[in-house]
Amino acid sequence: MNSFAEWLKKPVKLVDKTHEQKALARQQQLTKPPGSLGQLENLAVKIASLQASEIPDLTHVHITVYAADHGVMAEGVSAFPQSVTAAMIRNFASGGAAINVLAQELTAKLDVINVGTVDTLEDIPGVLDKRIDAGTANFCDGPAMTEHQCQQAILIGRDNVLSDIENTQLYIAGEMGIGNTSTATALASAILKCDPADLVGPGTGLDLQSIQHKLTVIQRALKLHADKLEGDILTLLQSLGGFEIAAMVGAYLSCAKQGVPVLIDGFISTTAALTAEKIQPGCKNWFIYSHQSAEPGHKVVLDALDAKPLLKLDMRLGEGSGAAVAVPLLRQACLLHNGMATFEQANISKGDK
Amino acid sequence: MNSFAEWLKKPVKLVDKTHEQKALARQQQLTKPPGSLGQLENLAVKIASLQASEIPDLTHVHITVYAADHGVMAEGVSAFPQSVTAAMIRNFASGGAAINVLAQELTAKLDVINVGTVDTLEDIPGVLDKRIDAGTANFCDGPAMTEHQCQQAILIGRDNVLSDIENTQLYIAGEMGIGNTSTATALASAILKCDPADLVGPGTGLDLQSIQHKLTVIQRALKLHADKLEGDILTLLQSLGGFEIAAMVGAYLSCAKQGVPVLIDGFISTTAALTAEKIQPGCKNWFIYSHQSAEPGHKVVLDALDAKPLLKLDMRLGEGSGAAVAVPLLRQACLLHNGMATFEQANISKGDK
Repeated sequence: MNSFAEWLKKPVKLVDKTHEQKALARQQQLTKPPGSLGQLENLAVKIASLQASEIPDLTHVHITVYAADHGVMAEGVSAFPQSVTAAMIRNFASGGAAINVLAQELTAKLDVINVGTVDTLEDIPGVLDKRIDAGTANFCDGPAMTEHQCQQAILIGRDNVLSDIENTQLYIAGEMGIGNTSTATALASAILKCDPADLVGPGTGLDLQSIQHKLTVIQRALKLHADKLEGDILTLLQSLGGFEIAAMVGAYLSCAKQGVPVLIDGFISTTAALTAEKIQPGCKNWFIYSHQSAEPGHKVVLDALDAKPLLKLDMRLGEGSGAAVAVPLLRQACLLHNGMATFEQANISKGDK
Repeated sequence: MNSFAEWLKKPVKLVDKTHEQKALARQQQLTKPPGSLGQLENLAVKIASLQASEIPDLTHVHITVYAADHGVMAEGVSAFPQSVTAAMIRNFASGGAAINVLAQELTAKLDVINVGTVDTLEDIPGVLDKRIDAGTANFCDGPAMTEHQCQQAILIGRDNVLSDIENTQLYIAGEMGIGNTSTATALASAILKCDPADLVGPGTGLDLQSIQHKLTVIQRALKLHADKLEGDILTLLQSLGGFEIAAMVGAYLSCAKQGVPVLIDGFISTTAALTAEKIQPGCKNWFIYSHQSAEPGHKVVLDALDAKPLLKLDMRLGEGSGAAVAVPLLRQACLLHNGMATFEQANISKGDK
């Protein structure tokens, strides 16, 4: 493998326009009024073009949950104690979390990677131990990560994508990290140069007073790192990100370079997607947006990516759960594209108005 | 079977509140922040209460497509010729339509019933021939159906639900009938006593000028039948409905009386659902709303039912396709409800804020 800098320079794969045109033409021939399958038609065309295939197929889905802790938890920004991150890793390993249930139903490959919990975890079957440190540092006091740590995290994501790339038709990155809506809010506000008050929200369930405190903490962090706001995006990620977020950035960059379609989950995942797009414009050509979560910052970050998510179900769980819930829509779009009869096959006259 | 009038009087089944409470309590115990699965939590609770079960299950789905023609087509209200209704029945029979692809993926039972096409159809394997007449009469000249025909159509829907009720955990009614957005717009406007201009839309794909013509036709019909607007709903259905719409009304009434959950599809289906609810208030307790279609009248009718549909994908195909697309969401909601670990099982502390 090349050095980090060389890998980063590797271009994003171009999307196949021939197959987009072919798929659009086929949609016009299927036995339905043109456009009547709405967004399912766009999805089928997009997947056909990303896969450069006339028969788009999403049988093989790779879901990876990246878990890590956040130094900003020292400021008291979550409704849950930090120990829950490690406890949820055990829950993923024993199959009890939402993403386990969904991944099983989808017959998806599910990886769980510990990128850096505060708690030292025993060796758990089914969990990849890639712990960089005992959580990030508190970004209210200094950078969340060292440059080396940030690169380590990015490469963990990259390597996870590469580990099963021959079998991956769709990649989903999920996350678990108590406190990570604070991290994502700080990072997205810095990248978009917008007021964190427009993004901050209840996360796992803060009351109004606690959200106000969370905002104050994020404002303090943005002030501390103000000199980096005009600098490069990797430095912002290092200063204000989290291990799991940087790993997702690495995974998304890797998918875009390799040409693997990505289904983006919620606020944290979309912030990582925005970061990847800002690091390497064109990444987002490989993204499909699954849902808009209840966390207010999600809409802001989606809008910055010109994203039109498929679902709006008030979900706000993370773990990749919103993306997993949307996978059947993508599969149905492909099945309809591949399996419906054409007007000619069914001997039906098309509309003339 | 009792007479029509006796059957109609049979009360709607009451929904089990005990199981609603049990399901709500369980949702609070699952390993996720309370409420973080958004509408999927509400869905699981609703299905558990409708099924009076602690383990809601939607393995067995019964989808029926009711097809019929419309006399109002004499006024030129559709982008497609009337022969397409029969042609699409053949397409359903040979497995080439959208609903075939979706039903197969869902391993759902799919019935296709000819309730009254203009064209005489040969005997087609897989199509139930219940043809009442060669389409309805033109409601711009008089009632669309005789009272007897309307009852016949309702009973076709009733009997279809009863035909496989032991195996039905969820019922979906879909429709096919060139011209039936005109019919649904006229019927819904009459029931809701609202301006058809607020409901009328492109249907399968009319241009603006043709939509204006369609509106004029519907206004003419509403004027002709103005004396019935204060009368009973069955008379409105007979005057302004269609065979397939009346059959869906019968199916929905039957589901509500028997206690079978129903997943409602698009504009035509929701207009039939509204009709059933107006005939027998309480029916709608058994309804789940799958999607909001691109046809403008759909939102009006959904609002009249206080319905919050799950999806908004700009679909406008009919056939039950929007409902079928939403079935995986309902199944995932059930699987999450049944399969996730509780905080106690996973030994995780709950949030304290």
